[in-house]
Amino acid sequence: MNASNGIKSVAFIGLGNMGRPMAENLLKAGFKVSVFDVVEASVKALASAGATPAASVAEVVAGVDAVLTMLPSSPHVEDVYLGKGRLLESARAGTLLIDCSTIASEAAAKVSKAAAVRGFTMIDAPVSGGTAGAVGATLTFMVGGDEAALELARPVLSAMGKNIFHAGAAGMGQVAKACNNMLLAIHMVGTAEALALGVKCGMDPAKLSEIMGKSSGNNWSLEKYNPWPGVQPNVPASRDYAGGFGVDLMAKDLGLAMEAALASGASTPLGTLARSLYRMHSTAGNGRLDFSSIVKMFQ
Amino acid sequence: MNASNGIKSVAFIGLGNMGRPMAENLLKAGFKVSVFDVVEASVKALASAGATPAASVAEVVAGVDAVLTMLPSSPHVEDVYLGKGRLLESARAGTLLIDCSTIASEAAAKVSKAAAVRGFTMIDAPVSGGTAGAVGATLTFMVGGDEAALELARPVLSAMGKNIFHAGAAGMGQVAKACNNMLLAIHMVGTAEALALGVKCGMDPAKLSEIMGKSSGNNWSLEKYNPWPGVQPNVPASRDYAGGFGVDLMAKDLGLAMEAALASGASTPLGTLARSLYRMHSTAGNGRLDFSSIVKMFQ
Amino acid sequence: MNASNGIKSVAFIGLGNMGRPMAENLLKAGFKVSVFDVVEASVKALASAGATPAASVAEVVAGVDAVLTMLPSSPHVEDVYLGKGRLLESARAGTLLIDCSTIASEAAAKVSKAAAVRGFTMIDAPVSGGTAGAVGATLTFMVGGDEAALELARPVLSAMGKNIFHAGAAGMGQVAKACNNMLLAIHMVGTAEALALGVKCGMDPAKLSEIMGKSSGNNWSLEKYNPWPGVQPNVPASRDYAGGFGVDLMAKDLGLAMEAALASGASTPLGTLARSLYRMHSTAGNGRLDFSSIVKMFQ
Amino acid sequence: MNASNGIKSVAFIGLGNMGRPMAENLLKAGFKVSVFDVVEASVKALASAGATPAASVAEVVAGVDAVLTMLPSSPHVEDVYLGKGRLLESARAGTLLIDCSTIASEAAAKVSKAAAVRGFTMIDAPVSGGTAGAVGATLTFMVGGDEAALELARPVLSAMGKNIFHAGAAGMGQVAKACNNMLLAIHMVGTAEALALGVKCGMDPAKLSEIMGKSSGNNWSLEKYNPWPGVQPNVPASRDYAGGFGVDLMAKDLGLAMEAALASGASTPLGTLARSLYRMHSTAGNGRLDFSSIVKMFQ
Repeated sequence: MNASNGIKSVAFIGLGNMGRPMAENLLKAGFKVSVFDVVEASVKALASAGATPAASVAEVVAGVDAVLTMLPSSPHVEDVYLGKGRLLESARAGTLLIDCSTIASEAAAKVSKAAAVRGFTMIDAPVSGGTAGAVGATLTFMVGGDEAALELARPVLSAMGKNIFHAGAAGMGQVAKACNNMLLAIHMVGTAEALALGVKCGMDPAKLSEIMGKSSGNNWSLEKYNPWPGVQPNVPASRDYAGGFGVDLMAKDLGLAMEAALASGASTPLGTLARSLYRMHSTAGNGRLDFSSIVKMFQ
Repeated sequence: MNASNGIKSVAFIGLGNMGRPMAENLLKAGFKVSVFDVVEASVKALASAGATPAASVAEVVAGVDAVLTMLPSSPHVEDVYLGKGRLLESARAGTLLIDCSTIASEAAAKVSKAAAVRGFTMIDAPVSGGTAGAVGATLTFMVGGDEAALELARPVLSAMGKNIFHAGAAGMGQVAKACNNMLLAIHMVGTAEALALGVKCGMDPAKLSEIMGKSSGNNWSLEKYNPWPGVQPNVPASRDYAGGFGVDLMAKDLGLAMEAALASGASTPLGTLARSLYRMHSTAGNGRLDFSSIVKMFQ
Repeated sequence: MNASNGIKSVAFIGLGNMGRPMAENLLKAGFKVSVFDVVEASVKALASAGATPAASVAEVVAGVDAVLTMLPSSPHVEDVYLGKGRLLESARAGTLLIDCSTIASEAAAKVSKAAAVRGFTMIDAPVSGGTAGAVGATLTFMVGGDEAALELARPVLSAMGKNIFHAGAAGMGQVAKACNNMLLAIHMVGTAEALALGVKCGMDPAKLSEIMGKSSGNNWSLEKYNPWPGVQPNVPASRDYAGGFGVDLMAKDLGLAMEAALASGASTPLGTLARSLYRMHSTAGNGRLDFSSIVKMFQ
Repeated sequence: MNASNGIKSVAFIGLGNMGRPMAENLLKAGFKVSVFDVVEASVKALASAGATPAASVAEVVAGVDAVLTMLPSSPHVEDVYLGKGRLLESARAGTLLIDCSTIASEAAAKVSKAAAVRGFTMIDAPVSGGTAGAVGATLTFMVGGDEAALELARPVLSAMGKNIFHAGAAGMGQVAKACNNMLLAIHMVGTAEALALGVKCGMDPAKLSEIMGKSSGNNWSLEKYNPWPGVQPNVPASRDYAGGFGVDLMAKDLGLAMEAALASGASTPLGTLARSLYRMHSTAGNGRLDFSSIVKMFQ
């Protein structure tokens, strides 16, 4: 395994549950990786895996070909990129910037524009696939920005994921992810409602899942991630909703879809209702469970 | 092609847009078919295709091995089966009864129970697949009732459809269909919302459809029946929402899901909201359009 | 205190939490009251208060001027009035029939029609005001049926309540009550949402209640029945949601509104969502709390 | 009529449908008023009524005791106050700042904080009452900020309105308004649904309005602003929904409530559904009608 011709050295900022395994996969693929996080222990862990530790944003980006960021929310991204003495003021001209964080599309477009003003090429490349996808290098990337920039980034992204989609101009990666996850939440809640309705009327949930799965009710939640306990093996519903994609993370993503709806004047009746349900489910103490646990509200 | 060993003669009651082609397929499969409808012209049309016309429920069921009914709503079914001098009082003992109407599961269970009391074997076998499926003999049947009764009916159903599911005891065919169509409506509305949101934020609807179709947002509406004009050929959205499955029919099916929710104490927040949206869409003059036209509410 | 000129003797069927105090108020007002309930102890309790006990519907209605019924649901009402050997077959010609139960308007209209066929005058007169109103004789009656029949019934109703509204023809009493309680549920949930939103943003709930109460947000729930603990004295919110109008009763009434929406083809997006929220709140173990406890879902 | 002891001269920025009559009322009350707007004609109109015209923000605030702003949205407010060479950089120390715009509470708090850093006292004082209230000097003010600052501002506000509420600290005026208007939208939609349901079931809308108005369904929309045509005189519903508070303005305010819900993690299922309905109603071409026209969606 060896790194691409174009990009040989990468700085990675943000070494949380997702960022750490992603950075590790870059190391495995032969990239020279320098790392930074506000949590020192995370930096040390990566250093012991072969990365070069850094003590600041300015230090970590010094001299690299590309910078990857994986941060929790819009304000973090704006701070790391736009803050005084931070990324845009310290990276060398021509560094490729790749933000893998899931943030508001408006924030992504704003940061990308500021980067362009300073002569950087930047893409927004939020991921789906969760921690399992991050560990197994099977993530999906939804990329906003120039196609040429995506081609430059492709070897780096390929070291961490399997599917790479070009969604459009800057910010469109975030739009695609917000739309996809809103739709995912809607059919997960819908699948939970439909199964609970059938069971309350006397049906067997496995039988109902089978019938709907072969009919027009079919959807990803029903087929790959059935929310009813015991219907499918190896899904969170069959291990008390441990692991998987948490309720609070889904609520956050639905919040980003709502922000996009507000900014664009769109109406999303089912999407915003799904967000309210996920927030209520979290309020009732289930924020850490997998998002398929929403079926508990209907049982 | 020839009829089954068990059942050779069939009475068909209800010759509307669905019933007529279904009865024709029974004729083609070699069954002896007698027909009745309150609309005389429909009876004549079938007679000219080889069926035996009848002038009443009592007359059409005389001497047949099985009776099929395809009627518009619960009260029609209750009247035809339970009314004075109607089906249960005139069919000969041992006739197999097959109701293909889409009605409330409670009504189906009630009629089935009354049939059992009089010694008949009955199944509820609502269909999906629309008029195209009825014409092409590719319908899906969701069957409630004894498995033995389903086996008896199988040759008859096979002459009209492709997939036959056993959903459970009497009434469960209706439950399965109500749940499936509620889930279908939910992901259709959700898909419409997600596409409209993406487009308002600047994305190309075909690109967004492709990305979500390969990601966790995927569902039958997006993949087989895309509601955005021009994204897929050969779907109602690409012919001004003509043909297909009408808004008013979807609203009716969502009403049946609501009835089931009321009877069973289930809560179906997205399902009932979808019904309200379809009713509003109909109120605005779109009742005859295909149900994917709901996207117009968001554009 | 003395009874009306017209009606002197009344049969009362259904002696639950509401029926018992209502029957007691009729006794206090000087009416001759005979009583029946399937629970013998309830009959005995009324007998010790001066009522004549009866052992069946047929016995209790013998010879009275008017019959009042206060029963839990449509099937109970249909059984008591329409069952073999029951009310319509045993009351003497000319008896005035008053159903105070809260049931589906379609069921009310059906029973009323059957009563008319047998020559009885009947009104539907569902109440609001809860057990406190029943005890204090301050109930509100919403009456469907002829105005003449309402005038005949007025002295009886006046002995149990304060406000008597004529809503229209047979069944319209039930329609008025379903609409009113749906609207009540909507502004209760809305008030709960608005207060919770304000508090999460840093406002004092009492201050916010005061401001909205004097502005265009004002409504009965906010003004008379504030759901936030401690804002008003003497409301269920200030005693842990004990007493008052239970979550399950509100869910039942919202179910009746949904039935009316289904029967009439109306769309009620907020009303059906409120029902789902109340059902979920009940599923989470709060069915017996006062309906203002819905605010817990948002805190 | 004469101005307060404290404040004698006022700068007014933003002379739209609301700002113009508000500035006129300040003139009538004896204040010395200087005015600025990006639309020159608006400035001239006020000048001919006695105000001192100015050509920039910096010019209009020169030497006044207080500044009032009435601007369309958060970005406008942030620009006017925080922009280079704008309000905070040009007003003299000690000037009282009063923002009457309806904007996001977070934006209000941010601007207020920046003002405090520069030594200004500021309050957020959004209004309700519409253009009629602005003309008649009967507006309601919901004020966030120090009580002392509110007392300083009171004579100014009193010249333009009737009710002045102190909602809490900086930003709380905006929170109170967002909560109030969300609740208003919810009971307006709920009232529309309830009336439409009743009418579809056969009731007279005036009779139903009367009954609910005297019962627990009562609310401001039903009592003062009935959405059904012909039930009340002198409301928008009785003049084809002309005048009043527009659909698009209500949608904007519901968007502000949604922003507050996102920022605070609140769940507002009915509130966000109301926003979607108002956006859909606008999409269907009704953005300029009064917000009570939402009843058209249900008729």
